[in-house]
Amino acid sequence: MSIRAGIVVTGTEVLTGRIADANGPWLAEQLRTLGVDVGHVVVVGDRPDDLLAALRFLTGTGVPLVITTGGLGPTADDLTAEIVGLFQGRPASLDPDLEQRIGAVVERLMALRGWRADAESTAAGVRKQAQVPVGATVLEPVGTAPGLVVPPAAGRSGPVVLVLPGPPGELRGMWPAAVAAAPVADLLTGAPELRQETVRLWGTLEAQLAATLRDHDAELAGLEITTCLREGELEIVTRFEPDAQPAYDRLLAALTEAHGDTVFSTGPDLDAVVAGALVERGLTIATAESCTGGLLAGRLSARPGSSDYLLGGVTAYANSAKEALLGVPADLLASHGAVSAEVARALAEGARARFGADVGVGITGVAGPGGGTEEKPVGTVHLCVVGPEERLERALRLRGSRSMVRDRSVTMALHLVRQLLLGGPPA
Amino acid sequence: MSIRAGIVVTGTEVLTGRIADANGPWLAEQLRTLGVDVGHVVVVGDRPDDLLAALRFLTGTGVPLVITTGGLGPTADDLTAEIVGLFQGRPASLDPDLEQRIGAVVERLMALRGWRADAESTAAGVRKQAQVPVGATVLEPVGTAPGLVVPPAAGRSGPVVLVLPGPPGELRGMWPAAVAAAPVADLLTGAPELRQETVRLWGTLEAQLAATLRDHDAELAGLEITTCLREGELEIVTRFEPDAQPAYDRLLAALTEAHGDTVFSTGPDLDAVVAGALVERGLTIATAESCTGGLLAGRLSARPGSSDYLLGGVTAYANSAKEALLGVPADLLASHGAVSAEVARALAEGARARFGADVGVGITGVAGPGGGTEEKPVGTVHLCVVGPEERLERALRLRGSRSMVRDRSVTMALHLVRQLLLGGPPA
Repeated sequence: MSIRAGIVVTGTEVLTGRIADANGPWLAEQLRTLGVDVGHVVVVGDRPDDLLAALRFLTGTGVPLVITTGGLGPTADDLTAEIVGLFQGRPASLDPDLEQRIGAVVERLMALRGWRADAESTAAGVRKQAQVPVGATVLEPVGTAPGLVVPPAAGRSGPVVLVLPGPPGELRGMWPAAVAAAPVADLLTGAPELRQETVRLWGTLEAQLAATLRDHDAELAGLEITTCLREGELEIVTRFEPDAQPAYDRLLAALTEAHGDTVFSTGPDLDAVVAGALVERGLTIATAESCTGGLLAGRLSARPGSSDYLLGGVTAYANSAKEALLGVPADLLASHGAVSAEVARALAEGARARFGADVGVGITGVAGPGGGTEEKPVGTVHLCVVGPEERLERALRLRGSRSMVRDRSVTMALHLVRQLLLGGPPA
Repeated sequence: MSIRAGIVVTGTEVLTGRIADANGPWLAEQLRTLGVDVGHVVVVGDRPDDLLAALRFLTGTGVPLVITTGGLGPTADDLTAEIVGLFQGRPASLDPDLEQRIGAVVERLMALRGWRADAESTAAGVRKQAQVPVGATVLEPVGTAPGLVVPPAAGRSGPVVLVLPGPPGELRGMWPAAVAAAPVADLLTGAPELRQETVRLWGTLEAQLAATLRDHDAELAGLEITTCLREGELEIVTRFEPDAQPAYDRLLAALTEAHGDTVFSTGPDLDAVVAGALVERGLTIATAESCTGGLLAGRLSARPGSSDYLLGGVTAYANSAKEALLGVPADLLASHGAVSAEVARALAEGARARFGADVGVGITGVAGPGGGTEEKPVGTVHLCVVGPEERLERALRLRGSRSMVRDRSVTMALHLVRQLLLGGPPA
């Protein structure tokens, strides 16, 4: 049996959506590879009572490990260390050595940025960050905040609470030390591996998949199957302990038999599939984007090593830029309009020619909320991919907000590239 | 007193980070404008017991309203409607009219995409989505899933549970009907407005701010102040009910007095500040990006109406593209290397010239994880912004992952544009 854990993400900025939480999911995935299954992620604001309630809730679910992120800064609203200490029956006190080490970090940071600060206020902040619940293990700061491993006080029961900082870079930098700290390492000993496999379909409805899963239900014991519809893609993720591998093999066979013509990946995501195909075939790619404004190039360049295939791209927002930088003929723009299949084609061909790439991608559309007409409403997008031998085109009518239209257009363009390079289900 | 609410986000795909939750924060912000304060967002996987535990926890916090998102699809792992019905003492049964309406939507969707499906499996999925807890109010589907308003059964106490679909487009489309539905509308009646104001600093340390807040603590009753350090920016968000407005005015005066030289906004975020400055001054902008691969252009084009100032950009990954599309001299690339202050300047000037823009931005750097050298390690980034009268440059040594280096470079470039256009704290 795998171990379970709960996560508390603190910070009013996360709760109110000003910052998207990157830590909960990252921790859940790290824990999975260690055989630890996360049941709940609770996001709370910077309020003592709400944080206490979250700790009580997760303790009540019976998990042996709770991880908190955030709330370790020098301001008064950062109260995680204090509250966790209170919860575990371990009041905090100043750790003078730690205070010195944090002070040195803060000084170095200020010098680096050329910022000036009042010595007294800096010292007060440092002193706050050096408060440690008695008996807790200190994890050395990666930024200015130390992490903490806080077991329940002697005579109490409950989970070990691992307290980590909020900035993702600091949290990730501290993770190896956190899992190596004795109270955490002891918990993890003996947890079995938790496998996770993904199958991706394009062109199968969720209802059809549901029928396939129902038909094979009896053969799939030991698998936790979740399906998720994402921008038209049906993603099937299965988690299982090693002894259920034969059941997973049966699932994969059933999916291939029922929906093989729509399976475009049994692992890597769309971006990785496209990158793999470009590398495999030794092809280069370049983009010409209007409504997506560089997001396709941004996504193609997100992977390490992408300079092996991505030569570059042009964001041509103004028509003058489409003409000057991509050679789109002025009369084509005048006669068909910037949002047209003809211009998408000229963009793709322009990108291919100007960058000397094997594959060119053109995107033009109306992302909204303004700019729509009766003939070309918001959400109208034309895509074109031109390769060495073939050209594929697609006209879309997308729904949703400006950012949804832009993101979805990029995804559809990547599916079109995938289809051009690999065949498989049509975009 | 404002009303409080809790949110449950369901879906193993969210819990494990395969999909970032966009709904919890969006709902929290919508609720705030209605005078409803969210204390906890709980993310749970597709497991009945975990969902029940989350509902029990939020009910235990005493909130009169709980909102769930996700888990309304046709597959067996989608179980929110059933579990919420169970929790509220309202068993589900088939709503035949709703079944017909959903069936029509599914048919139309399939026809639109040209997908074929087995009629029986489609019908089974539709039938599952048309199960409604007895006595619940149905919110018409925006996609295929209906929403539900589920009060506790007669004789029971507890919160009204509002059940909404997971896809953000569907959830947002359904929101107006959800808040208008009687059991929700009744709750919201009389909730006072909850104000939220933001001050953004660049160049003040969190510890300095903490000292300022401590000094003025006695004058700030009624304010919930949270501070958040984000990519070097110190963001101070204050929430308060209308009668605490004078306290907020005192806070703003104190911040301005202590840190006025680092305040770059008392409201809009950096992107909005830059966009506003461009519009105000009637200037256009163009970008030339290497390591950020189009993300700056993507961010500049994210706002509606951005075509008023953004002419476009070039992502020049390959050196050949830097030469051909932006006129960076080959000997400059050879003598200084692509990652250099000289090339950043040539990129900015190239973007300005090729697009005929008033402002040109150049970014070149080593995003990693590979490609670093002793002289130019991963995280080395050169920025240049060229305007009508002035040129600003900045050399960075950033830490963190590839995506962190890229995102931070884009933010720093925007700060440099802000400084060029508006002065204020140096980037």
